[in-house]
Amino acid sequence: MNMDTKTGNPIYLDYNATTPLDPRVVEAMLPWLRGGYGNPSSDHPYGHRARAAVAEARAHIAALIGAKAGEIIFTGSATEANNLAILGTARVRGKGGKLVCSAIEHPSVAQPMQHLAGEGWQLAVLPVDAGGQVLLPAAAQAISTGTTLVSVMLANNEVGTIQPIAALAGLAHAAGAAMHVDAAQAVGKIPVDVDALGADLLTLAGHKFYAPKGVGAVFVRSGTPLAAIQFGAGHEGGLRPGTENVPHIVALGEAARLAKLELEAEMARLRQLRDTLQRHLAAAIPGLLVNGQADACLPGTLNVSFPGIEGWRLLAAVPELAASTGSACHAGQHAASGVLGAMGLSAGRAAAALRLSLGRFTTLDEVGTAARALSAAWGAARTVSNPA
Amino acid sequence: MNMDTKTGNPIYLDYNATTPLDPRVVEAMLPWLRGGYGNPSSDHPYGHRARAAVAEARAHIAALIGAKAGEIIFTGSATEANNLAILGTARVRGKGGKLVCSAIEHPSVAQPMQHLAGEGWQLAVLPVDAGGQVLLPAAAQAISTGTTLVSVMLANNEVGTIQPIAALAGLAHAAGAAMHVDAAQAVGKIPVDVDALGADLLTLAGHKFYAPKGVGAVFVRSGTPLAAIQFGAGHEGGLRPGTENVPHIVALGEAARLAKLELEAEMARLRQLRDTLQRHLAAAIPGLLVNGQADACLPGTLNVSFPGIEGWRLLAAVPELAASTGSACHAGQHAASGVLGAMGLSAGRAAAALRLSLGRFTTLDEVGTAARALSAAWGAARTVSNPA
Repeated sequence: MNMDTKTGNPIYLDYNATTPLDPRVVEAMLPWLRGGYGNPSSDHPYGHRARAAVAEARAHIAALIGAKAGEIIFTGSATEANNLAILGTARVRGKGGKLVCSAIEHPSVAQPMQHLAGEGWQLAVLPVDAGGQVLLPAAAQAISTGTTLVSVMLANNEVGTIQPIAALAGLAHAAGAAMHVDAAQAVGKIPVDVDALGADLLTLAGHKFYAPKGVGAVFVRSGTPLAAIQFGAGHEGGLRPGTENVPHIVALGEAARLAKLELEAEMARLRQLRDTLQRHLAAAIPGLLVNGQADACLPGTLNVSFPGIEGWRLLAAVPELAASTGSACHAGQHAASGVLGAMGLSAGRAAAALRLSLGRFTTLDEVGTAARALSAAWGAARTVSNPA
Repeated sequence: MNMDTKTGNPIYLDYNATTPLDPRVVEAMLPWLRGGYGNPSSDHPYGHRARAAVAEARAHIAALIGAKAGEIIFTGSATEANNLAILGTARVRGKGGKLVCSAIEHPSVAQPMQHLAGEGWQLAVLPVDAGGQVLLPAAAQAISTGTTLVSVMLANNEVGTIQPIAALAGLAHAAGAAMHVDAAQAVGKIPVDVDALGADLLTLAGHKFYAPKGVGAVFVRSGTPLAAIQFGAGHEGGLRPGTENVPHIVALGEAARLAKLELEAEMARLRQLRDTLQRHLAAAIPGLLVNGQADACLPGTLNVSFPGIEGWRLLAAVPELAASTGSACHAGQHAASGVLGAMGLSAGRAAAALRLSLGRFTTLDEVGTAARALSAAWGAARTVSNPA
């Protein structure tokens, strides 16, 4: 497919939807798309090499999140990791318990929870405040003896708000529940340590930190009971059958290695770029509103509502920019974001929101261009709707 | 990882375990590992291009198996496709019915079946004859009113035997059951047409026909009831959530396109190579036994028992050859193959079996070298165990 279509390559500020692959990650994969094609289960040199590569990748992931290699289970996506963590915990612990999640979870957490609720599990959905943070008093009330699992995301995909996971894990453990953390938007962007968080289960996604789509992993703390949700030939400690996706697993490992090396510097750089973008926009657009929790936010995420124009209309007027309105999971939908609604934002403010998410390849130049283009389009739209 | 280790690159006759990627498939993927990183759900040019690439791949898969594009659901592996087909059929049809599979299914079919049996489903396991073919009279007896699902593989991974699927599908449909076909070892190797087979559900695996590990698909005939087994943001018609693995899906599409173009010629070439290998071995090794059904076998699969020596010992004596003893799914195991046992082979003959599986990059020269090396190692082992 021709990449140089008429549409061109707009400035990409949609890193929370998916990241480009880091060219170093692609380089690391290539040998496993060429000579290194063995099946890790095969007992010959092709198999042995593939097996060793998978083991090395597992160690890199573990190192990034403070886990042991044996606690990392590779999956085909973060969605699968979330399903395994949630359905697998419910299946192994039996029926009739209580589940707790937040009101702003990704569908790959919210939907398995709803599925279990349909099977008779009790489900408590924790409210969030105006910044998108789970209300701890509500959590303390909801998480009680008889709770089987608490699942709360570490960082929100739309507004970037970071949750008080350690406190929630404390509540979960006091109640005898397991703590699952969907860290798909956090791993590789902020420090993630499974012990500091108190996570028993933690999900990560390759394509959110410069590895390809189609690979994820779930951390399963040693001793945490978990049942498989698919059945086959016993791969991944019996928890996830299927021949290992060696090239993608190697890519995930390399992405983890790079993230660990570069995390601190990259966080500072992105925070500065994001703040610059916000400053430029605020200067040009009176009444611009920032959605989220400024003091607990992913460094590269900026969710802003532009006064007087729906987000999708504004984006459509700026074809030189690729960004997102609500969650990126459904194409062509202009429905209001559930996350912003749960934060108590008015329908108008939610509809006016844009998510601008920055990443490793975002430059100061791009940020300036994006801010100018958005400001100009906003001004033009205002002129049309309010002729002098 | 260095590919030129001391172990070198033995002759690869283990295509049924996994195939190398076709270099043309790698070329097709590369743009989607580089510039084409958009999320197919994103409503901007990056997303639109990725979405179009997925659609194009879907059409190629459909064309290869005589399906409509909308009947193809991408998964992370054939194992996942088998699980979705089997568990998803059971879930949507309710509890208490009867399931039927053969005695020589891959664990990714046999294990979901066993899981459902543990939930109270009745499970009938069809016996096979000495060539590995399902016995139709036994099938006719087992498949009755109240049967929910019949699942039989199209071609066996160990001996290559091709099953009478159309006849089994006839029995299934007469009983009101759905017919699932695990065609992981067949697609790309022999003609597969979902209508000719009478399949309602059919599984295929990327890494068995020159696409990467980590991608598969399941054909779901229009109107076939199926429930999702994972839950999330509604991808793949609501049947398989998770951001699409665009590079691997593109690879699968390209592999399908190539397979369709080259299938007839390649089948003839492989059949000739396989027959040459068999002839060389039979000429050098009196008492060599071929396992399987000669007149209904994958063109590139040769399963043979060498008299007087266990397969793994013989393979260990021929480091210049990469092949397999039993199923390749578990490293380091020397347990007898369940498939050969189900065919009624003696324990000795089963333990003496080697699976030599050929593919697109196998040459006449390699086949000759492999035959000579195996014959020489067999002769040497005989001399040791029966000194003159």
